[in-house]
Amino acid sequence: MRAPQQDRSRVTRQRLLEATVDSLVEFGWSATTVAVVAQRAGVSRGAAQHHFPTREDLITAALEFMFDSRMEQARREVTELPEGNGRTEAVIGRLVDYYTGTLFKAALQVWTAAAADPELRARILPLEERFGRVAHRTAIESLGVDDSDPTVRRLVQATLDLARGLGLADILTDDSRRRTEIVRCWSAQLDAALTSLAPATPPASPAL
Amino acid sequence: MRAPQQDRSRVTRQRLLEATVDSLVEFGWSATTVAVVAQRAGVSRGAAQHHFPTREDLITAALEFMFDSRMEQARREVTELPEGNGRTEAVIGRLVDYYTGTLFKAALQVWTAAAADPELRARILPLEERFGRVAHRTAIESLGVDDSDPTVRRLVQATLDLARGLGLADILTDDSRRRTEIVRCWSAQLDAALTSLAPATPPASPAL
Repeated sequence: MRAPQQDRSRVTRQRLLEATVDSLVEFGWSATTVAVVAQRAGVSRGAAQHHFPTREDLITAALEFMFDSRMEQARREVTELPEGNGRTEAVIGRLVDYYTGTLFKAALQVWTAAAADPELRARILPLEERFGRVAHRTAIESLGVDDSDPTVRRLVQATLDLARGLGLADILTDDSRRRTEIVRCWSAQLDAALTSLAPATPPASPAL
Repeated sequence: MRAPQQDRSRVTRQRLLEATVDSLVEFGWSATTVAVVAQRAGVSRGAAQHHFPTREDLITAALEFMFDSRMEQARREVTELPEGNGRTEAVIGRLVDYYTGTLFKAALQVWTAAAADPELRARILPLEERFGRVAHRTAIESLGVDDSDPTVRRLVQATLDLARGLGLADILTDDSRRRTEIVRCWSAQLDAALTSLAPATPPASPAL
């Protein structure tokens, strides 16, 4: 059994991580310090620093926590996806929702800061590699396709690239109306391409 | 005839704009001040402030200058594009080059800062609107397609969204190898889709 002390510590940690993501989205990278996050989370600065000695510790932990929660949610939701017609559009719609949500907007602040800061970049690269790998695998599983075919693999990667581009198109304005049309159009393309690549149904057994 | 004084002023202005873009890419938004840019351009701070009273003036002028140069270059290069097979891949390759180049990396710093700064956002929105419109029209002209068909219009928009996503995938690591495969794969898809949408060749005139 977990002692109450450990529970409190876990709750504090989680509040700090969520406040970090909110602060990144609202105030940006420069303004998101341990002190600002601690205040937002209603946690003393000392307690925050006990959990996360540096701003980089706090921010990378926050992105990992959010990403893992999101991917776990996506895997749970796979069973709710429609089979057959409409599955591709439902998967792409959800995928694009992730890339236009809070996690993406927070990560964009960190990635952009890392582009102009070699130390931060070294710290973020392993996250980028893991996030890319897990997001690709989750998309493959949700679409229910076989990515041993190189064209299928590239089409799924292109879909993730598209989703990332749609995420970026949404950071200054609400791009949801245009995006809905793009998702529908891309889904139809992807469906047609995946169908043409799918292994043909094996012929029925001969009548002997 | 232009007076030497005007020429010097124009050269100073252009050096400041180029130094701004370089500084955004190398040092990021926060560090790109008029003083830093003036020093980088070898211009006195007073002269820099004569041209651009505020950092926002300098940075928006720099993005507009770079964007207009890029689009002008793209329009000049249209005549060099191959006709028929290979044109789509050539156009998308160039498009993606723009989104992985210096201008995109500089603009990303500004867009990301604007996402967490309402005043800057208000200043950047008209640029975003214009850049999006001109980039779409240039892509349509380069591909040589008719975007009065709504599916063609969406496919071209999706291509720009994909290019933006590929740009973002390149900011921390050199993603060029994977990107080449994605460009080839999407170009084949887009070619097939545009061909199926193209108006059929009109039948030959009857022999009367």
